[in-house]
Amino acid sequence: MDVVFLGTGAGIPAKLRNVSSLALKLLDERGSIWLFDCGEATQHQILHTSIKPRRIEKIFITHLHGDHIYGLPGLLSSRSFQGGDTEVTLYGPRGLKEYIKVSLSVSGTYLKYPLKVAEISDGDVLDEKDFKVEARLLEHGIPSYGYRVIEKDRPGTLLADKLAEAGIKPGPIYKKIKNGENIELENGSILEAKNFLGPAQKGRIITVLGDTRICDAAIELAAHADLLIHEATFSQGEEKLAYDYFHSTTLQAAQVAREANARKLCLNHISSRYERQDWEQLVKESQTIFPNTVIAEDFKEVHIPLDKGEVS
Amino acid sequence: MDVVFLGTGAGIPAKLRNVSSLALKLLDERGSIWLFDCGEATQHQILHTSIKPRRIEKIFITHLHGDHIYGLPGLLSSRSFQGGDTEVTLYGPRGLKEYIKVSLSVSGTYLKYPLKVAEISDGDVLDEKDFKVEARLLEHGIPSYGYRVIEKDRPGTLLADKLAEAGIKPGPIYKKIKNGENIELENGSILEAKNFLGPAQKGRIITVLGDTRICDAAIELAAHADLLIHEATFSQGEEKLAYDYFHSTTLQAAQVAREANARKLCLNHISSRYERQDWEQLVKESQTIFPNTVIAEDFKEVHIPLDKGEVS
Ligand SMILES: [Zn+2]
Ligand SMILES: [Zn+2]
Repeated sequence: MDVVFLGTGAGIPAKLRNVSSLALKLLDERGSIWLFDCGEATQHQILHTSIKPRRIEKIFITHLHGDHIYGLPGLLSSRSFQGGDTEVTLYGPRGLKEYIKVSLSVSGTYLKYPLKVAEISDGDVLDEKDFKVEARLLEHGIPSYGYRVIEKDRPGTLLADKLAEAGIKPGPIYKKIKNGENIELENGSILEAKNFLGPAQKGRIITVLGDTRICDAAIELAAHADLLIHEATFSQGEEKLAYDYFHSTTLQAAQVAREANARKLCLNHISSRYERQDWEQLVKESQTIFPNTVIAEDFKEVHIPLDKGEVS
Repeated sequence: MDVVFLGTGAGIPAKLRNVSSLALKLLDERGSIWLFDCGEATQHQILHTSIKPRRIEKIFITHLHGDHIYGLPGLLSSRSFQGGDTEVTLYGPRGLKEYIKVSLSVSGTYLKYPLKVAEISDGDVLDEKDFKVEARLLEHGIPSYGYRVIEKDRPGTLLADKLAEAGIKPGPIYKKIKNGENIELENGSILEAKNFLGPAQKGRIITVLGDTRICDAAIELAAHADLLIHEATFSQGEEKLAYDYFHSTTLQAAQVAREANARKLCLNHISSRYERQDWEQLVKESQTIFPNTVIAEDFKEVHIPLDKGEVS
């Protein structure tokens, strides 16, 4: 599981930072890629990565500002043109459906794959066997959501050899043990499932926030996240500016990460007023409060490792 | 007067050719820039040129396929964000108004300058003191227009010294001569205006076509054009493919240029099936019929010189 940043700037494209988009690569987990936001020229950025547009399965839109959505019609069209034929689902605030419908119909675009658009509100936006995604409204000029992507814990693998040693023959009992059920044998003794299962694998949590002021919903979405991607449009000291324009500073992002007990923070959505030589300073500001901070850059990959320990 | 190509590919963006857009620089003539088509990431391409978005005064859209319009909302928004405050007019087929309206309103975008959208049909789309633009419907899968940009002839400058030598005193008569009127003097002799005017300057004609099969309207739009920009999605020999997909070949573009007696032809909208090493061959195909052919490339500039001769 890796995050690849495709656009990490704020508001308008600049040479070093395109407008917002990032990819969550779930190739091992689902054989697919999820995008978060899709600013203009996201498909152009993808041309410079190993991402195959036909692998894109879901696109989560945080909010409808142009720098977060104007790349959608082009990406969806090109995916079709390039032979993508599997379903895509878009998630995002109300208005997304109309935007997509008009953009595609006015341009006479017919997608060769099924496209679903799910307009979301607070709560679970998807709940599947392996992943669950929750959304919460943040604090921005227009409705802006944060997403909490929860990989479900995976039960340990069945230790068939050990079961055989214990004289248990394959059958329905194996499935029960696999599901963690303790079994009472005919002789009255109890087989404890955990003794016949490898270590369970704790799922990871990735939190991707849309543009926002510092707010409680952000902290809740980021609780114990392995990776929190938080906007930091402005530097420390610009809290007034951040408040007025519904954005956050580096320090506020760090406060959220600390209060949420996140493992790692990635600062994103960086204003073009900060030049390359300023970026290190932005990280340092955040690190005064939350040491494990990095800053997003276009094309940077951040790996999210599996937890070494068992599920507690 | 120069043309700068911003995107010269067909259908989908590729590393070497972005989707369609070109700028007609009228900095000396009007202090402004006109765009023709605005595919996705046109504003990104502009970042790598000397073009200032606030200078963009008019945008002519040939047709509504995504590769020709998906860059419009972003360009218009960024122009506002960057302080552009002068009016912009868009010209294009029916549907353009709805597309712009929905894209801007869904994203909560308020432009700080007046934006006019003129949905066009065959005929004059603008007629001003210095320039006139005509549009004609071409032959494509959806309504696709070609534009003929006509710079009006400029009368010669008044030779005031020569008038003084001839004993004519400044007054209303000067204006009449400036306008090319011959004057009968009180003594019955005739002052021929042309003797008191510098050489008139013949205006230039630039023809920019949308996607099209070879067709008569293209020839008419290109009549005696100083520069004809014609799509050549496919190479010679692919006439069947070109017909089926409503496009043209290199050879067909050359035929149009020859029949129209154009001065120069620029092949545009080149399919990404042709790699860099193939481009020269595409030009050669066209040159067998129309020698003065060049091929468009992203960021290439083509100068359109003033005619050395007088107005005939
Ligand atoms: Zn933003
Ligand atoms: Zn096209």
